Amino acid sequence: MTAEIISVGTEILMGNIVNTNAAFIAERLSALGISCYYQTVVGDNADRLKDQLKRSLKRSDIVILSGGLGPTEDDLTKETAASVCGYKLVEDVKARQDIAEYFKTRGKEPAENNWKQAMVPEGCTVLYNPNGTAPGIIMQKGDQHVVLLPGPPDELVPMFKKQVEKYLSSLSEDVIVSRTIKLCGVGESSAEEAILDLIDNQTNPTIATYAKIREVHIRVTARAKNIKEAKTILQPTVREIKKRFKDNIFATEEEVTLEASVIDLLKKKNFSLSIAESCTGGLLSARLINVPGASEVYKSGFVVYSNKAKRKLLGLKKKAIDKYGAVSAQTAEEMTKGLAMETKSDVCVSITGIAGPGGGSAEKPVGLVYIACNVKGKITVRQYMFKGTRAKIRESSAAEALILIRECVANR
Amino acid sequence: MTAEIISVGTEILMGNIVNTNAAFIAERLSALGISCYYQTVVGDNADRLKDQLKRSLKRSDIVILSGGLGPTEDDLTKETAASVCGYKLVEDVKARQDIAEYFKTRGKEPAENNWKQAMVPEGCTVLYNPNGTAPGIIMQKGDQHVVLLPGPPDELVPMFKKQVEKYLSSLSEDVIVSRTIKLCGVGESSAEEAILDLIDNQTNPTIATYAKIREVHIRVTARAKNIKEAKTILQPTVREIKKRFKDNIFATEEEVTLEASVIDLLKKKNFSLSIAESCTGGLLSARLINVPGASEVYKSGFVVYSNKAKRKLLGLKKKAIDKYGAVSAQTAEEMTKGLAMETKSDVCVSITGIAGPGGGSAEKPVGLVYIACNVKGKITVRQYMFKGTRAKIRESSAAEALILIRECVANR
Repeated sequence: MTAEIISVGTEILMGNIVNTNAAFIAERLSALGISCYYQTVVGDNADRLKDQLKRSLKRSDIVILSGGLGPTEDDLTKETAASVCGYKLVEDVKARQDIAEYFKTRGKEPAENNWKQAMVPEGCTVLYNPNGTAPGIIMQKGDQHVVLLPGPPDELVPMFKKQVEKYLSSLSEDVIVSRTIKLCGVGESSAEEAILDLIDNQTNPTIATYAKIREVHIRVTARAKNIKEAKTILQPTVREIKKRFKDNIFATEEEVTLEASVIDLLKKKNFSLSIAESCTGGLLSARLINVPGASEVYKSGFVVYSNKAKRKLLGLKKKAIDKYGAVSAQTAEEMTKGLAMETKSDVCVSITGIAGPGGGSAEKPVGLVYIACNVKGKITVRQYMFKGTRAKIRESSAAEALILIRECVANR
Repeated sequence: MTAEIISVGTEILMGNIVNTNAAFIAERLSALGISCYYQTVVGDNADRLKDQLKRSLKRSDIVILSGGLGPTEDDLTKETAASVCGYKLVEDVKARQDIAEYFKTRGKEPAENNWKQAMVPEGCTVLYNPNGTAPGIIMQKGDQHVVLLPGPPDELVPMFKKQVEKYLSSLSEDVIVSRTIKLCGVGESSAEEAILDLIDNQTNPTIATYAKIREVHIRVTARAKNIKEAKTILQPTVREIKKRFKDNIFATEEEVTLEASVIDLLKKKNFSLSIAESCTGGLLSARLINVPGASEVYKSGFVVYSNKAKRKLLGLKKKAIDKYGAVSAQTAEEMTKGLAMETKSDVCVSITGIAGPGGGSAEKPVGLVYIACNVKGKITVRQYMFKGTRAKIRESSAAEALILIRECVANR
């Protein structure tokens, strides 16, 4: 079974809003085992929408449209789709009641054009909308299915989860099950080379790699008649990939981030963590604290961007900073030592580097970063050379710090 | 002149990532005065990509593709587009040098498949990529233009701004000049209402509003025969908009971020800044330090996520935290006072709140945040109620802290 998504709205075409609806629908379709080969965005234009819908119906079993169900003249998705599918619009009694009710509970009067939203293709499935005034619609055209959804995500998302998924799962015979294996400390090319034989032989399950900042994600996807069978198909490939990457694997679940895996590891070891950041300026702490429950391990963070702050908050000596430079292995090491003295945390991490665009030299170019990780007195200092914008160098530094923590803590 | 966007990547089709590239390109095309009627997403599949590119070339003057320029076997945008446009791939000497250099500065060896990225369509325009290993490409096919860009946003965005826009503007006889006016402390609907008369009457210049996190950007765009004339057309509208929003305007240039405007303001006042963050956990510091030259004003930052850290680093009393709660106006105020005592900075900002998903109560729900700004002893504390995910609540908090600093400092 194949589906495709058509997002309707000039505001997406103009770049005023990011198309999060398409990403949401795509993810849910994939989880339902429905293949999606196209996403398209068209503006609020009847001719182009009609063309696109006809084209989509030539190549997909299910076409899901979002947007253009509002009350204004611009909103013409329903009218256009009904005409392409050969349906006449009629008023739906319950939809009309819903609209009246919606305005009543908000102490407002509906405008005349709101009643247009109660018109639906005759004989279709109406998806009533408790979060707005536009009902969703499912029309059949022969063996094909056309689904119309309201554009606002807080209407579309619950309607999809509660009503559309039930409808779609009843259509599909196969299920799809995916497993994501997340790696760090290895680049995308090397990761792919290491499993090239598996990739080359893939049919079911399929294998795909995704490059993230200092991470590589490998997704293995199986298709089968039921979940149990799909899992059985997945297993040997997943096991083989795990065997090949061992310590580079930080997560085997889609939801688990690198920072969450670090927090989890620290929790298991019962280690507390403190951080001193110069060039990253709080980025590493911010990532860690985005993990719910981070407070169980995260003790204190210092943003010591200036040398003065490094001296005052971490007790570094002016002479030493002057001798080695603020960006040096020695300073990174002294920072973790000072941090350990100050916080008594089990794990103390420091980052110092040149994020640019200014401040670089031939000897110490922009992108040079030192990260030190101090686990109960055992200090590892590592040098990195990142490229890119100031923001990218800082993000890469924070990511590598997480990777270094993982490595140093796992070995204890 | 019309353009369309084809985003290539199974990870977008599967909903693994949101297509922010399309929104970015669409926004920039619109600023260049180039109409865009379609955005399409196709997977890493040569046949479907070929079909789509051919279809796009039937209806648009410019086709911009992003993604699929990586080193792996999945990446086939370049090969496919070159074949559709009738180009042979040849090695580009500089691209090869760039790749060698990229790995050398990182102390790594390129994998064999990385050299594939140095192959370009013969005679095309190569867009060299200082932020990654995949160069971008512009091919001509008769009067039409096919632009290939790398998928990672931190490579695509600078390449588009620095290289593609120059190329695209050279295609048009008219010049387009835009001015962006950036607002904070006002919502998108209110901003739009305040200039509805101007929007309704727009032809040249045109006016568009964009909602960002706690910011609204208004872009005014004029089309004319030359830059001088375009600027003359812009001027009255820009002046009128500035008059209407006055203090809500934090920047009148596209490149100036909210954090940069805050750093700039502090520099002008010769004020130093220190920050204590609880729920944002370093996010505010990280944004400020992303501004080159932030070190001139930024003194110290403390991440005091735990109550223990609040007491130890900022000298808060256990009794007071217990009495009012860690998330309270009183605690926010005490945090800025402690911070001022500790750092002697002119401006001391503190944030404490409940980012969720846990930790909320009926009285203090998830999303409740207090921000205090202490300018030389004069303290302003403000309460906020944000909605959304943990990440969104934290981002909104950091943004509102910047807005509060701006307001409190401007009045001094």
